[in-house]
Amino acid sequence: MLLDTLLAVRQRSETLIAPLEPEDLMLQGMADASPPKWHLGHTNWFFDTFVLQPHAAGHRACDPLWSYQFNSYYDAIGARHPRPQRGLLSRPAIGAVLAWRQRVDAGLEALLQDPPEGVDALVQLGLQHEQQHQELLLMDLLDGFNRQPSEPVYNPEAELTLTLEEEQWLACPGGLTEIGHQGERFHFDNETPRHRVWLEPFELSSSLVSNAGYAGFIADGGYQRPELWMSEGWTLVQQHQWQAPRYWRENNHEFTLAGRRRRDPQAPVRHLSWFEADAYARWSGARLPTEAEWEHALGLHGAAMQHAHRVLWQWTASAYSPYPGFRPVEGAIGEYNGKFMSSQMVLRGSSWLTPPGHERNSYRNFFPPASRWMAAGIRLAR
Amino acid sequence: MLLDTLLAVRQRSETLIAPLEPEDLMLQGMADASPPKWHLGHTNWFFDTFVLQPHAAGHRACDPLWSYQFNSYYDAIGARHPRPQRGLLSRPAIGAVLAWRQRVDAGLEALLQDPPEGVDALVQLGLQHEQQHQELLLMDLLDGFNRQPSEPVYNPEAELTLTLEEEQWLACPGGLTEIGHQGERFHFDNETPRHRVWLEPFELSSSLVSNAGYAGFIADGGYQRPELWMSEGWTLVQQHQWQAPRYWRENNHEFTLAGRRRRDPQAPVRHLSWFEADAYARWSGARLPTEAEWEHALGLHGAAMQHAHRVLWQWTASAYSPYPGFRPVEGAIGEYNGKFMSSQMVLRGSSWLTPPGHERNSYRNFFPPASRWMAAGIRLAR
Amino acid sequence: MLLDTLLAVRQRSETLIAPLEPEDLMLQGMADASPPKWHLGHTNWFFDTFVLQPHAAGHRACDPLWSYQFNSYYDAIGARHPRPQRGLLSRPAIGAVLAWRQRVDAGLEALLQDPPEGVDALVQLGLQHEQQHQELLLMDLLDGFNRQPSEPVYNPEAELTLTLEEEQWLACPGGLTEIGHQGERFHFDNETPRHRVWLEPFELSSSLVSNAGYAGFIADGGYQRPELWMSEGWTLVQQHQWQAPRYWRENNHEFTLAGRRRRDPQAPVRHLSWFEADAYARWSGARLPTEAEWEHALGLHGAAMQHAHRVLWQWTASAYSPYPGFRPVEGAIGEYNGKFMSSQMVLRGSSWLTPPGHERNSYRNFFPPASRWMAAGIRLAR
Amino acid sequence: MLLDTLLAVRQRSETLIAPLEPEDLMLQGMADASPPKWHLGHTNWFFDTFVLQPHAAGHRACDPLWSYQFNSYYDAIGARHPRPQRGLLSRPAIGAVLAWRQRVDAGLEALLQDPPEGVDALVQLGLQHEQQHQELLLMDLLDGFNRQPSEPVYNPEAELTLTLEEEQWLACPGGLTEIGHQGERFHFDNETPRHRVWLEPFELSSSLVSNAGYAGFIADGGYQRPELWMSEGWTLVQQHQWQAPRYWRENNHEFTLAGRRRRDPQAPVRHLSWFEADAYARWSGARLPTEAEWEHALGLHGAAMQHAHRVLWQWTASAYSPYPGFRPVEGAIGEYNGKFMSSQMVLRGSSWLTPPGHERNSYRNFFPPASRWMAAGIRLAR
Repeated sequence: MLLDTLLAVRQRSETLIAPLEPEDLMLQGMADASPPKWHLGHTNWFFDTFVLQPHAAGHRACDPLWSYQFNSYYDAIGARHPRPQRGLLSRPAIGAVLAWRQRVDAGLEALLQDPPEGVDALVQLGLQHEQQHQELLLMDLLDGFNRQPSEPVYNPEAELTLTLEEEQWLACPGGLTEIGHQGERFHFDNETPRHRVWLEPFELSSSLVSNAGYAGFIADGGYQRPELWMSEGWTLVQQHQWQAPRYWRENNHEFTLAGRRRRDPQAPVRHLSWFEADAYARWSGARLPTEAEWEHALGLHGAAMQHAHRVLWQWTASAYSPYPGFRPVEGAIGEYNGKFMSSQMVLRGSSWLTPPGHERNSYRNFFPPASRWMAAGIRLAR
Repeated sequence: MLLDTLLAVRQRSETLIAPLEPEDLMLQGMADASPPKWHLGHTNWFFDTFVLQPHAAGHRACDPLWSYQFNSYYDAIGARHPRPQRGLLSRPAIGAVLAWRQRVDAGLEALLQDPPEGVDALVQLGLQHEQQHQELLLMDLLDGFNRQPSEPVYNPEAELTLTLEEEQWLACPGGLTEIGHQGERFHFDNETPRHRVWLEPFELSSSLVSNAGYAGFIADGGYQRPELWMSEGWTLVQQHQWQAPRYWRENNHEFTLAGRRRRDPQAPVRHLSWFEADAYARWSGARLPTEAEWEHALGLHGAAMQHAHRVLWQWTASAYSPYPGFRPVEGAIGEYNGKFMSSQMVLRGSSWLTPPGHERNSYRNFFPPASRWMAAGIRLAR
Repeated sequence: MLLDTLLAVRQRSETLIAPLEPEDLMLQGMADASPPKWHLGHTNWFFDTFVLQPHAAGHRACDPLWSYQFNSYYDAIGARHPRPQRGLLSRPAIGAVLAWRQRVDAGLEALLQDPPEGVDALVQLGLQHEQQHQELLLMDLLDGFNRQPSEPVYNPEAELTLTLEEEQWLACPGGLTEIGHQGERFHFDNETPRHRVWLEPFELSSSLVSNAGYAGFIADGGYQRPELWMSEGWTLVQQHQWQAPRYWRENNHEFTLAGRRRRDPQAPVRHLSWFEADAYARWSGARLPTEAEWEHALGLHGAAMQHAHRVLWQWTASAYSPYPGFRPVEGAIGEYNGKFMSSQMVLRGSSWLTPPGHERNSYRNFFPPASRWMAAGIRLAR
Repeated sequence: MLLDTLLAVRQRSETLIAPLEPEDLMLQGMADASPPKWHLGHTNWFFDTFVLQPHAAGHRACDPLWSYQFNSYYDAIGARHPRPQRGLLSRPAIGAVLAWRQRVDAGLEALLQDPPEGVDALVQLGLQHEQQHQELLLMDLLDGFNRQPSEPVYNPEAELTLTLEEEQWLACPGGLTEIGHQGERFHFDNETPRHRVWLEPFELSSSLVSNAGYAGFIADGGYQRPELWMSEGWTLVQQHQWQAPRYWRENNHEFTLAGRRRRDPQAPVRHLSWFEADAYARWSGARLPTEAEWEHALGLHGAAMQHAHRVLWQWTASAYSPYPGFRPVEGAIGEYNGKFMSSQMVLRGSSWLTPPGHERNSYRNFFPPASRWMAAGIRLAR
């Protein structure tokens, strides 16, 4: 059954690139993003390196050159191609990458007939890793398409459609509570250990902030009033001339994976930085929730806290730090989450780009506060 | 009595520049630092702008041009000279700045004969602000002198001399505790509100990490082993070729305000980034304390927690965030602390450069994790 | 007959990309280079814009968006996509570009049945322009392939093979002479007007500098001796750590369009900057010729001045300036050569990458003195 | 008599800084400029290094550290402090520099009682070098003052006052002529060898372009019309938002060493780049003269060619290249002129900032075409 899931996830990666032109496979719009072909190669390298090479007798490791090209950031594995130059890797071409994926699939299939101790967990990790890259691939593609005058359409059906209902304030009494992953289901190391946290009473919005709500902030001079911003954010506003969320276009349009579209005022605002979310919250007389508040409220209120999942990642007020007693996994695979615990903010929930089944209440996503290309939105607290 | 304190603090600023050559007054070693003359002008501008202009009838405000030059980051006051170019402000010359300081001193003296409501608090804030800049002036000067081949000596007596004793681990049982400022004494807004925090049991070192201890980290390949570092820190290590704390020199020397000196192995290591402190802690099998742990342990153990003050600021594991329920002061003066609550880490304690009397157990100092020019050191937790 | 030539040149552009993978079509290794697909689109845009739109009744102009993307630097035509971001233009895909080329070919074929006044000259210019881009395409591709760990082979047959003979010094008595284009054959505006120049007596080498000769310069500390270099060049040597020509690899290899190859000591040295050519000349006790000397000597000595064409472009000592009385062509098409007459040096001759028939004795090629990716070599004078 | 001249020139350097505040001595407005104190130290270092150390028995060489700090670009002498960081050298303070100058003056005075062979020429070179730096000091100071909101006045008398007369076109028949230094008087190596040049007939303006003339260019959209500009210049116009000469201010004012002043329409336009001079010339239907034309016309027309000297340096159309047969002086001193013969343009004449007696008809001044802070203006040819 793990095998079935695995193969379905693997297949989905290839399905995602089906609508693309070959040239799109090379597209890297900025240093933070990666080309689609690279995502396909890198997720394959992950299985080749961490599952097949150590555990599948007779597996022929990929070319060291490919390992150099498709390693993302695992220093323990060796040197790697500089990230900002992934868009220069025209070779191997997609055909060779897909053939490599087939070899790895075959190897995994054979290995999972009778998996040695620990392999199931590694395969599960590789599978979750590939799901993460499926979302990254779509985010990165949106960024790359957004930079082109021709405004390409990835998929007319790829769009989020949601009309927000009126906001309620969900009361949370606070007190001594617990957050973090619980139980046997898969989770990342950064969600543990589950631990106690003291919370003061607070309220959380039942909903997300809408495009109309955010337009009110803009109309009220939101991008011209330094008192609403963190100093660092205000510098960015001026430096990059931010005046609206990243993909907003003139005349009430926005750029999406379905191309240029009319912006729905009642849809949730998205693709904005933590600084914008924070400034909006201050303007509205509220604030962003901490990640503990977010997780606790979801446990308390369940479905009444709408859109916790599968709509937009939600910025929190929490810097991404280790939970008390956190220990990363041993070995190279431990470079997964722990080494990014500086200068980033936590996002909670999941988005419409997140592969179905990948979401989790204790999930800790993280990005630098200036990042805008993720599918991120705003939920308020007070 | 406030007046006496005020005048003593004001006088101290001018005493600090007595050993300098006129050219030193213009010295700005990097964009993050400011020239000594600018610090003297800026602290004066603070009193002129926030105390005398609104409250001293008949006070003649300083030239708007000077306000433009000596405003640091108060957007509500108006435009300002770009920080990286403070070192280009040869005019007004020091004589004119000192004359301005005398006028402001006279104005404050008159005003404090019969201070209107609220003025005492503003003067107190201006006084504390000037003390902060006294430490900044010395930090910045050390940076500027460090960049010169001639290795100037600021003051042969200006050095920290301390021999560390053997480290003890102070046990702290944790539980529900409180941190934040309490009582009527002066404090900054970011130290409030006092609030409850849940702590798991931990131990804190009684002492700071020594030069010898840190040399052990270096000798063990600390700067060559990516697994010890946050990813962001490792990038900096490679980019800037960091190989030791900022002011270490070859042959067991270091650069100080007393010039080039032999480094004492038993003195505390200093002038290193949060990334280096964090990597050292990981290497030693410990970690940095959170700011709540630091403050709680000091309350619990008192003097047994040595060197909490007047030696070195101590990096914590805590990102600089608002306390639950934090509200900045109203008005321009509220731009003091709150707007820097992103991408910085908290340091606790105080340093040998901190003006006597300025220290406080609830004091939250903050700097970006890559900063190295402050008088910062390491205290471990586990 | 012009039509035959035209169609042959047009066909050749498409033949040049036949060995490429689709991903290679997007490859832009640096801001100075362009992707292969862009070269095919741009040369087509040239005909569409300057020939068909003004002269072919009923011609449907290309999409303004495509004009924006494929305009190189013609300000009179309108805004254009920033050059450093040509590698982000995944759309239009190659299929659409090739279909556009077919439409333009058909339009040109129809137009040339009975060409209006002036059209022949414009078509001739477009044809020469496309030939220039054929060489650029190969230069740029070599740069892009050179940046990849996988060391792609473009064409095993694409390499220059030449063994240099022993150098002779060709004597030239100087005096009042003439340079510049003469006659009715096609030429660029910058080769005119033909004009008088006074030359002092000089000698020119019959041959080019070899890899072995250049290796002698390196072995003699050429890249470590500032006295051999222009100050600007010496700064570049240190900044970029230049230690050899651009495509030299360790163990006497070099990277070429035929992949990594053993370097032939008797082949001409190539792919080096003007600064390297100038430093080499100084080291060898000679100098670079002026462009007037080069052109005059070729007229005087003919074939005895070997390798004037079809081997390597040859750096001269001449800055690229207008000839006395130079007038660029009227209109947008006049932005071709004249506006680049600053901060560049003239190269004379042609290279093995130059399309056959494109070379001319009065041809003035030009590049900034720091450029290294062209097929440039060294001929000495004294 | 050489000694008298020497001492007068040396004294003049110190007189130039008399109106300055001590802080001004540290002022370095940009990487291309140097602080006044540095100019005083560097010119002294030149005599110490090239005259006294090799020729004055018993001379105590300056501290190697000072040599490191005050060496400008003489690689043969050793390493040096990075130019962009000269503004960080607060030490040695001016007092120590002036004392050093006195020691050097005394040494030179003793040496010149009975100068060994070759010393007179070296002293002459040092003297001319110091004169060059006197002009640089004033140019650099103007740049540094220009960056300050307080608009300092260096010297109310320091300004150029000149009302241009109506322009005449001076006819020059051309033919075979000679340029370059002739005779025994002092000259720099780059003015030789005198050599033959062929000139076509041309006309040269008797005068310089006025502020009013240049204002006409601006009013006619000069800074908005790409067809008037070199491509490289047009990029700079857009990048730096050039809209007028460097020191023009709003409301018909300009910034000068005498502070902010009303701009005289009939005074010559100044402080503009070669790109602006070239664009203006194109707009006016003329061109810039070559340096050979300039020098030849001055020989032919003498005083009828007004303002050749002591008003403004005049941009020419000539790239700065070696004269045929040029040989730099042997040794470190030969790094004076020859190594800058790339990517710069020649200016002829002299300016009102040039020390009296320093000017010469064959003088070749040179700056990169983007430089604007020199005292440069425009003379047209056609």
